[in-house]
Amino acid sequence: MSRSLARYLPILDWGRTYNPGALSNDLIAALIVTIMLIPQSLAYALLAGLPPEMGLYASIAPIMLYAIFGTSRALAVGPVAVVSLMTAAAIGNVAEAGTAGYIAAAITLAALSGGILLLMGVFRLGFLANFLSHPVIAGFITASGVLIATSQLKHILGVDAGGHTLIHLVESLWHHLPDTNLMTLVLGVTATAFLFWVRKGLKPLLLGFGLSKRMADIGTKAGPVAAVVVTTAVVWLFGLDAQGVKIVGAVPQSLPPLTMPDLSVDLVKALFIPALLISIIGFVESISVAQTLAAKKRQRIDPDQELIGLGVANIGAAFTGGYPVTGGFSRSVVNFDAGAETPAAGAYTAVGLAIAALALTPLIFFLPKATLAATIIVAVLSLVDFGILKRTWTYSKADFLAVLATILLTLGLGVEVGVSAGVIISIFLHLYTSSKPHVAEVGLVVGTQHFRNIKRHKVMTFPTLLTLRIDESLYFANARYLEDYIYDRVIGDKPLTDVVIMCSAVNEVDMSALESLEAINARLKDMNIRLHLSEVKGPVMDRLQRSHFLDELTGDVFLSQYDAHHQLGAQAT
Amino acid sequence: MSRSLARYLPILDWGRTYNPGALSNDLIAALIVTIMLIPQSLAYALLAGLPPEMGLYASIAPIMLYAIFGTSRALAVGPVAVVSLMTAAAIGNVAEAGTAGYIAAAITLAALSGGILLLMGVFRLGFLANFLSHPVIAGFITASGVLIATSQLKHILGVDAGGHTLIHLVESLWHHLPDTNLMTLVLGVTATAFLFWVRKGLKPLLLGFGLSKRMADIGTKAGPVAAVVVTTAVVWLFGLDAQGVKIVGAVPQSLPPLTMPDLSVDLVKALFIPALLISIIGFVESISVAQTLAAKKRQRIDPDQELIGLGVANIGAAFTGGYPVTGGFSRSVVNFDAGAETPAAGAYTAVGLAIAALALTPLIFFLPKATLAATIIVAVLSLVDFGILKRTWTYSKADFLAVLATILLTLGLGVEVGVSAGVIISIFLHLYTSSKPHVAEVGLVVGTQHFRNIKRHKVMTFPTLLTLRIDESLYFANARYLEDYIYDRVIGDKPLTDVVIMCSAVNEVDMSALESLEAINARLKDMNIRLHLSEVKGPVMDRLQRSHFLDELTGDVFLSQYDAHHQLGAQAT
Repeated sequence: MSRSLARYLPILDWGRTYNPGALSNDLIAALIVTIMLIPQSLAYALLAGLPPEMGLYASIAPIMLYAIFGTSRALAVGPVAVVSLMTAAAIGNVAEAGTAGYIAAAITLAALSGGILLLMGVFRLGFLANFLSHPVIAGFITASGVLIATSQLKHILGVDAGGHTLIHLVESLWHHLPDTNLMTLVLGVTATAFLFWVRKGLKPLLLGFGLSKRMADIGTKAGPVAAVVVTTAVVWLFGLDAQGVKIVGAVPQSLPPLTMPDLSVDLVKALFIPALLISIIGFVESISVAQTLAAKKRQRIDPDQELIGLGVANIGAAFTGGYPVTGGFSRSVVNFDAGAETPAAGAYTAVGLAIAALALTPLIFFLPKATLAATIIVAVLSLVDFGILKRTWTYSKADFLAVLATILLTLGLGVEVGVSAGVIISIFLHLYTSSKPHVAEVGLVVGTQHFRNIKRHKVMTFPTLLTLRIDESLYFANARYLEDYIYDRVIGDKPLTDVVIMCSAVNEVDMSALESLEAINARLKDMNIRLHLSEVKGPVMDRLQRSHFLDELTGDVFLSQYDAHHQLGAQAT
Repeated sequence: MSRSLARYLPILDWGRTYNPGALSNDLIAALIVTIMLIPQSLAYALLAGLPPEMGLYASIAPIMLYAIFGTSRALAVGPVAVVSLMTAAAIGNVAEAGTAGYIAAAITLAALSGGILLLMGVFRLGFLANFLSHPVIAGFITASGVLIATSQLKHILGVDAGGHTLIHLVESLWHHLPDTNLMTLVLGVTATAFLFWVRKGLKPLLLGFGLSKRMADIGTKAGPVAAVVVTTAVVWLFGLDAQGVKIVGAVPQSLPPLTMPDLSVDLVKALFIPALLISIIGFVESISVAQTLAAKKRQRIDPDQELIGLGVANIGAAFTGGYPVTGGFSRSVVNFDAGAETPAAGAYTAVGLAIAALALTPLIFFLPKATLAATIIVAVLSLVDFGILKRTWTYSKADFLAVLATILLTLGLGVEVGVSAGVIISIFLHLYTSSKPHVAEVGLVVGTQHFRNIKRHKVMTFPTLLTLRIDESLYFANARYLEDYIYDRVIGDKPLTDVVIMCSAVNEVDMSALESLEAINARLKDMNIRLHLSEVKGPVMDRLQRSHFLDELTGDVFLSQYDAHHQLGAQAT
């Protein structure tokens, strides 16, 4: 009973052995993550087109709820770049950015996404995420990174521009280019350059100062905080906001508010598919991070329980003024590197962020949006990896096609079309490949009991006997192919009296394939040709015996191909 | 050049050797099929909610065009029951039955369906039809048969009723039951009973009279014509139309008119998906019939060319006042049994039907609609086969689920939902099954070089060595499963130092699976466990060598599992 409860509440598992050592490690990690999360949360809310405080709110309740229900000990849940972009695309379809409807839609999206994740977890549907192939995800993330970086350029230029596809974004930017605010541009470019330098150049410097590798890593993560502090101070000191530099402005000083998601039928209908896509993408991103970190400590991640954890976290976001969240890569890695031992670190981070939301928001009044945009641009460009195109091209043309289509469609038609197309193309290419299985005509290698492809080996055959080895399980997608293949091969082959299908590589014969075998049997019978099977695996044979196929079969089922060859060959001569 | 032309115009192939013997056989077959088709064409038009003459028109141009472009020598193309039902469902959504818009929509549907089939043929996409599993088709046809028979009861009762789902149909019939016209009911029930008797009892009788089996078969097919003649005469003689018996009435005496399909954007948008479904269902039905008949004479059917033939036939229907057509089962079998040798028989049938449309339509003025409904009911009930539920239940629970869902959804929500759901469920179940492949932990059968499942056989293993045999190709749907499986197995197994993946049954490793292998390798490395592969197939190895995986692999690739066991075991002891 308590064991099964612990399955759904992993906190009961690690909570039992919580000790002062773990507490102090968790507290230190929480402090570091909190410092990093403040600018990041504000920035991602900006990316989603939402008020900055929603980014903070989305980091507080979710992170605590995940600590209770999640299985990863290091995962940090909150707003992330790709999900923020998808949120912007989804709610941009139902409301105008900046309106109350837009915020309400974001909250509803979090509730739907949470509900979907929770249901998937309860019904153990985590495997659904497997239908997103890795290259499709890589292509999608790359294209999303490009979209996100482009979408933030407007803040660097200080203009109003928009759009959810690359073409629209670029057109809109080009159109508004003359409105560029020079002060904003200087600030934005400087912040971006600084953050790039922090990424590339600061760590060697810190190491040179004698810091440990771990502290140097963490130091570089504080770069955005430095950028925020300095640019905010500059704007405030020189009154740049009066010169057109857009600032964050007044942010309510409050704990996350209690919000009720609007679950009216029309809104749910409009947001359901986007919520589903966000759930799946978010889950895939989160589980990869969680597994990578868990493996380093030989810890176990339960994918179905992760769905429950993320589901509850999103529902929590919906009721506390947040928007869709998931496990983020960079924050989780920082959490892990900073020494977090249990999910309690997440709870302490939440407390830190709550304090920030209550006390620190007045300090960011003068924070320029250009700085947040710079943070986002630098963060997402590390996600962009067009190398996936080259790697898939070398490795597999089918995967290459899927990636290329995903990238082009995401850039050209937006995130929702892109990721849906990626899934469909992956499944389609897989079915297409397995719908034309490799079929080899085989003969006996003389002096052995082995049968090999007649095209590659010198083998013995009989003119009256055709033996086909099928290198794939038989199911509906390739059942008809097999029919066609056999008819094509048999028609016009006058001396033929016996066909043997060698089933050594057939792990399954579904109902469609069974009916195809029946059709092949019946049609060969019309041509006065007998059909035989050889080397049928046990489970497949069990099933065939439950059908009428074996009664109708004109030929025999041979235990070994050698028996078939021997016996049928003897009849022929 | 002429050879490749003959690929697209099979008529050039058989036309070259056409001779008087074939001519006379074709003419006889055409006469028999024409007699059978007249009532059938009228009845199916009624089923689609269209004027009866459209059934005739849909049988004339399409049959001639198929004769030129099709590869089957016996297939008879025209309106069929299931496609007529799907047509009614599709165009019922865009226009009111009996209006000009309804007829225009039917013509557009034929044009779209023809275009889709033609494009599929040109791009050789015939394999798409394979994604419809056999049991799903069987379930769909069964449910459609029930829907069709129920929809025709209104004509037997002589009431106005409608609906596209079983519940709506039954409700509507129940609601209108008090309006039943007694005369119509007597005629309808008598005709239905007669036609059932013709099916079951007439053949033995004709055989008893000394007719050949073939003639007896054909004689029973003339039953509907007898019913038409007798009931028409009865209505005319007794003036039953004045007593409320609904009759076909005035049918224009004309050759098929030239019609232009309305391809306005809104109509095309509304009808595209139904047209796609009709195309696929029609193609699947047609190709099964064509292949069955061709096999009996060792003739060859080219599925892609069949798509072109059916595509042109449907476009022909669209331009000559018809509606979607396909190769019909009963008419093709009659054509074949009656001795048709070439597609020319189809052309002669078309001439016969054209004469009927020109000259015979006044004769069917008094034909009661109840008789046509009886024809349909008797024809479709032979399609109904709930036995598929039992057969799939015995054979495979996954297939059973797919059939059950298809039947219930078709009956409950209509043909379009039913068949779409069937396709999706089939694909989903297949992916689900292969997403959890069989993985066996194996050990050495002492005294041999064979490796067997440790659960089933007494085998030798080492505590430091784990060997896993995977019985499935590795691709995106099962890549993550493999990761999870290995982590679950490895975590907590302290003595473990080496994991071998035995790849003898792995026919493919796609990019996702490659990345999973890389992740497994990296994470096992974090746990100080080496990863090895054994018995990798040639093509898989070729691919792996084009990636960086083999450079990063912590262990080795062993040619045989025995080598791996031997070498890694020796290190351990």
